Amino acid sequence: MLQIAGGITAPQGFIAAGVNADIKGNGDEKKDIALICSQTAAACAGVFTQNKYAAAPVKWSRRVSAPGLARAIVVNSGNANACTGQKGRLDAHNMANLAAEALNIHGKEVLVCSTGVIGVTLPMEKIKTGIFKAAKALSPEGGKEAALAIMTTDTFPKEVALEFELGGKRVRLGGMAKGSGMIQPNMATMLGFITSDIMIAPVVLKKALKKAADKTFNMLSIDGDTSTNDTVLALCNGMAGNPLIDSEEHPLFERFYQALEEICLALTKMMALDGEGATKFLEIVVENARTLKDAAKIAKAVAGSSLVKTAFFGEDANWGRIICAVGYSGAKFNANTVDIALESPAGREPVMENGAGLSFNEANAAKILAEKEIRIIINLHDGLAGAKAWGCDLSYDYVKINGSYRT
Amino acid sequence: MLQIAGGITAPQGFIAAGVNADIKGNGDEKKDIALICSQTAAACAGVFTQNKYAAAPVKWSRRVSAPGLARAIVVNSGNANACTGQKGRLDAHNMANLAAEALNIHGKEVLVCSTGVIGVTLPMEKIKTGIFKAAKALSPEGGKEAALAIMTTDTFPKEVALEFELGGKRVRLGGMAKGSGMIQPNMATMLGFITSDIMIAPVVLKKALKKAADKTFNMLSIDGDTSTNDTVLALCNGMAGNPLIDSEEHPLFERFYQALEEICLALTKMMALDGEGATKFLEIVVENARTLKDAAKIAKAVAGSSLVKTAFFGEDANWGRIICAVGYSGAKFNANTVDIALESPAGREPVMENGAGLSFNEANAAKILAEKEIRIIINLHDGLAGAKAWGCDLSYDYVKINGSYRT
Repeated sequence: MLQIAGGITAPQGFIAAGVNADIKGNGDEKKDIALICSQTAAACAGVFTQNKYAAAPVKWSRRVSAPGLARAIVVNSGNANACTGQKGRLDAHNMANLAAEALNIHGKEVLVCSTGVIGVTLPMEKIKTGIFKAAKALSPEGGKEAALAIMTTDTFPKEVALEFELGGKRVRLGGMAKGSGMIQPNMATMLGFITSDIMIAPVVLKKALKKAADKTFNMLSIDGDTSTNDTVLALCNGMAGNPLIDSEEHPLFERFYQALEEICLALTKMMALDGEGATKFLEIVVENARTLKDAAKIAKAVAGSSLVKTAFFGEDANWGRIICAVGYSGAKFNANTVDIALESPAGREPVMENGAGLSFNEANAAKILAEKEIRIIINLHDGLAGAKAWGCDLSYDYVKINGSYRT
Repeated sequence: MLQIAGGITAPQGFIAAGVNADIKGNGDEKKDIALICSQTAAACAGVFTQNKYAAAPVKWSRRVSAPGLARAIVVNSGNANACTGQKGRLDAHNMANLAAEALNIHGKEVLVCSTGVIGVTLPMEKIKTGIFKAAKALSPEGGKEAALAIMTTDTFPKEVALEFELGGKRVRLGGMAKGSGMIQPNMATMLGFITSDIMIAPVVLKKALKKAADKTFNMLSIDGDTSTNDTVLALCNGMAGNPLIDSEEHPLFERFYQALEEICLALTKMMALDGEGATKFLEIVVENARTLKDAAKIAKAVAGSSLVKTAFFGEDANWGRIICAVGYSGAKFNANTVDIALESPAGREPVMENGAGLSFNEANAAKILAEKEIRIIINLHDGLAGAKAWGCDLSYDYVKINGSYRT
């Protein structure tokens, strides 16, 4: 598979735009409305937050995506439209209807996402102006503008695209995401959007997206720490003309799935790299666990531990905090066969063997931890399953960013 | 019940000491060995960490406390003796035997606790010297010295004592605790010690301690985030001569239990106040939940949220983060009847009603949040159960303290 330039408008038949509508009302010129449109009806699928206070746009998109076909997605940043009551519900519906009007399609073909502060109602006049402005700006080169418009505290836009052959046709997948409240992962909103010109049945797309999200986006997450707005949406419009992938047993399914997972993984890593205040990117690799579930529990517990995160910020090889998180993860494993090693471009240093600490080379560990990208490798020697999770360190800047998010 | 000066040596028949043994090896003069001794055999009970990597002293104390009688407790700070393999196990046993030798009792009458860095073996020569030094220094006025010796990153010693009448006798309870890694509560070690001259059967003491710990110490805790060394121990030597409390139905039990819970609560609040880097003390009050379990889940989720904590550090009335934590807590409740208010000595401000945000008075909210002690009141209007949890904000200093804990 070839990684190519671009994002959601890389596949055939997708146009997008990102414009400024001053949704936060502070007069700055940051783009805050994104519009994505497929020229034809597209198979669609979504995965959504499990939070009991799912935002109004989440409720709308969950319902509208269920039948499996859609044409467009409208997104605003700067306001989450969550905990906004009946007005919030109407506003989400109106966002869909306004986009539909601007695009001359039906409201129920439009998915809606919002991200930003909770509990403030949307400035609908500005939203309306912004949507019509975006509709006019739609272009096959608009992917980057859209990626900019969905950002909140992100420091860079997150885009990726792949091209490969599938059933004799050249096909493409594109993706973009936002999210950088990754210290308590998923607490701040994560939005992901994937487009493709592949021809695939909605029900198959849905299963593939769920599986890929579980292995990528959800591995940035502590169990249950889901925001009110987390959403990943995929649109596949079939314009590449490949044979229809109508089941998971279809000969082309596996190749499509690998590409989808690769897109999701690339976006996941970008979000970890852009974690709020992050100075380090952490990859936690759990090997030889009894089950996938046990491996995932351990990887996520380590990725989510504030004490692990602060230790890496301080470049302190305090592996005791890693094993402590392993110990409280709730996973089943043999405590006496666990090895832990730290790895980075600067080298590798084992710090624990058979469940007990090693008197390791502190100078080598310091060199490893001075790098920006670090892997924590946890080998349980207790089975054949593995999992990875991603995160970042916890820095002064995280506190700074989150101490005054609303202001 | 009368709160009196002192701590664990306030009850009759208890002596204690705290001395310096240079366990961290950095030559500073901080006390790091505490010894507590009852003049007679005492009913004992303990609650211990659920972490799979329970430290060697935890395993020792769990086993030795099980039969329900003990005479002494030896504690070191500066080294957790966790993940230290077979040598660690022997070292914990030797700590008990050395204390027993110094006190002329049996090793199995001595409970052991350790707190500090994980994965480093104890300097047993220094421990030995320290234990004998402490044994010589034992005194009925030694409670404060012991409270100082168990501290790690704590900024003040935590002691409390109560006196009241029970069955015609004046009785006393004393307590001390350490713990300030309270941002991810329980991740850093929490140790608590309670003494009393009350006469009570070990099996009844055990039940009372478990119940009181669940309502106090464990409400500083995110589910499952338990360190390798967390321990609370209680010793009751019966020297007050009250009628033996031999069951939970005994007429004196309830009064004893109330005093025990009061001691535990006072120590819990001191730990929250002394949270690493904390500038604010947070009390989360959940009212009118369907069940105690639902109330506790919500209170703990809010107390444990990094985003809530940073918002309070920034004195930002970002109630969206509170409701977000309520939403992912896993509790069952009606999302549309929830009210939230913020309260402090400066006043009270409702910020959410019936599950939706209020346009509240920002100036009043700012005044409330400028105070050091703040209550978050969450009324679910969905039942009759309630719970409280305690915590603190997340500040730059938390990152500073934990970025270089080992150094």
